[in-house]
Amino acid sequence: MHTFEELSALFSEKFDKSHFPDTPRTLYEPNDYFLSLGGKRLRPILCLMANELFGKISSDAWQVAAAIELFHNFTLIHDDIMDKAPLRRGKPTVHTKYNESTALLAGDVMLIRAYQYIGTIDVTLIQRILHLFSHTAAEVCEGQQLDMDFEQRADVTFDEYLTMITQKTSVLLAASLQLGGILGGGSLGNLDLLYQAGKKIGLAFQMQDDYLDAFGNPEKFGKQAGGDILANKKTFLLLRALETATRGQKEELDHLLRGNEPEKVNKVLKIYRDCKVDEWALELKSRFLSEALQHFDDMAVVSKRKAPLIELAQQLVKREH
Amino acid sequence: MHTFEELSALFSEKFDKSHFPDTPRTLYEPNDYFLSLGGKRLRPILCLMANELFGKISSDAWQVAAAIELFHNFTLIHDDIMDKAPLRRGKPTVHTKYNESTALLAGDVMLIRAYQYIGTIDVTLIQRILHLFSHTAAEVCEGQQLDMDFEQRADVTFDEYLTMITQKTSVLLAASLQLGGILGGGSLGNLDLLYQAGKKIGLAFQMQDDYLDAFGNPEKFGKQAGGDILANKKTFLLLRALETATRGQKEELDHLLRGNEPEKVNKVLKIYRDCKVDEWALELKSRFLSEALQHFDDMAVVSKRKAPLIELAQQLVKREH
Repeated sequence: MHTFEELSALFSEKFDKSHFPDTPRTLYEPNDYFLSLGGKRLRPILCLMANELFGKISSDAWQVAAAIELFHNFTLIHDDIMDKAPLRRGKPTVHTKYNESTALLAGDVMLIRAYQYIGTIDVTLIQRILHLFSHTAAEVCEGQQLDMDFEQRADVTFDEYLTMITQKTSVLLAASLQLGGILGGGSLGNLDLLYQAGKKIGLAFQMQDDYLDAFGNPEKFGKQAGGDILANKKTFLLLRALETATRGQKEELDHLLRGNEPEKVNKVLKIYRDCKVDEWALELKSRFLSEALQHFDDMAVVSKRKAPLIELAQQLVKREH
Repeated sequence: MHTFEELSALFSEKFDKSHFPDTPRTLYEPNDYFLSLGGKRLRPILCLMANELFGKISSDAWQVAAAIELFHNFTLIHDDIMDKAPLRRGKPTVHTKYNESTALLAGDVMLIRAYQYIGTIDVTLIQRILHLFSHTAAEVCEGQQLDMDFEQRADVTFDEYLTMITQKTSVLLAASLQLGGILGGGSLGNLDLLYQAGKKIGLAFQMQDDYLDAFGNPEKFGKQAGGDILANKKTFLLLRALETATRGQKEELDHLLRGNEPEKVNKVLKIYRDCKVDEWALELKSRFLSEALQHFDDMAVVSKRKAPLIELAQQLVKREH
């Protein structure tokens, strides 16, 4: 069995090379560039860890892990175009460094490359893997569309937000675990538990992200505190505040959201605290994490094999950056 | 055996329905809209015809034909964004009717849906189909990138243009035929001939397109004559003219391309005619067609089974619009 750090090193060893032909450079250099920006490689490692629950990591699991990471990077390249984001991991995004058409096409070919990796695995498993992979891919697109739709709406409910985040973020973590489990020959019961656990980890992860953006220590977090508030971004925190605020607080919040006064962040944070949104967020995050851990606990797998996944889930949600 | 018209009707019967879930409408309505604009459905029909060379059309061939048509529509949606095209088949393009982000995501999910159809076929064939499909998909992206690169360059050679058109247009026709052949159990020799024939049909088709744009009867062609000339688009004709013109003609051509004088189209057409580019184009188109027909002839398949494909190839290249 391997820890996150060990798998991270092993995955890098295999993955950190070009995944593309040499030419045309105008198309593939942007792909190489974007992948060179790195990342936590969380999703492929979840796949590998889930695979290792059931035995030695299979060669197919490495292929599917690569496919997952390429798929994730495809979504980032295209999301960055849609969000008009200038930076990703502190470096220029593909559409900024090159241009939008190249970024669009680089994303397309990254997705196709992901399917090429899927195409190499054992034929007895390929249909199940392809089905889950494509179903998840479509859900992630749906989540991104809902996210864009919500930007235009003032009446998004907490449940709608939960659905959107589940599709945009959680299902890929869930599928990463289940894909690894399928390749490991996991039982249907265990595969379902892996998927449910992944969804909960995704939600806890997003909650942590929203919380840190508002209440995190900017020095540790490495970003301006209150960025989401300044951008009027819908987050777990804002939606909870809008649902629980008194009429007076809600009016003040609506007023603050419409304007851009210098004290906006602090005033919004005060309302969050007055509504106990901070406490609620930590509690809900803990609940998501406990539920994920319970799913791991329920799996019919020797306990010690579960240790790396449990450790990773706890670390992810504890992170301060 | 079925003619193009018969297969066209049969394919429409199966294909003209929604290929997507109901929600989110904001994502899937644009996909339904774009597919409702129709098209010749040439590529899926090539797949079906190739499949029928070897026997009754298989249920897998219908699935792969649908995947091919969805893939083709994915490329159109994304190409329209890159080309900033306002219209497609006389109707607003997806990014014009909705917005660029929605068009980007609608294209992404159209590609994913294509793979979902591939995922349903017989497991003994899925790896070969997936391999050819993905390899072709990547080549089409490469062709589109080269096309964009060439817009920025004044020194594109005829051979480079041929490579670009082969990737952007021909390989998908070639792969459509070969995919149908693989599903029909064609021998490696026959499969190779199908692929080579498809490539040649694609080149003849593009040559016809370039020719009609310059020399076609605008009433039959339904477009303004000389559109490519006005847009300074690199075409078979322009590249041939630049390669064969005298120094004087070349200087005049360069001068005309830089400007936008009222008589630009007629003056360029005159140079084309003086360089006999029109005759050359018709000859080269005939040569591509003959080569395609020769490949069909060489296939070890009962002659009468080849009739619909031969008829289709001839019609495609004879078309006046």
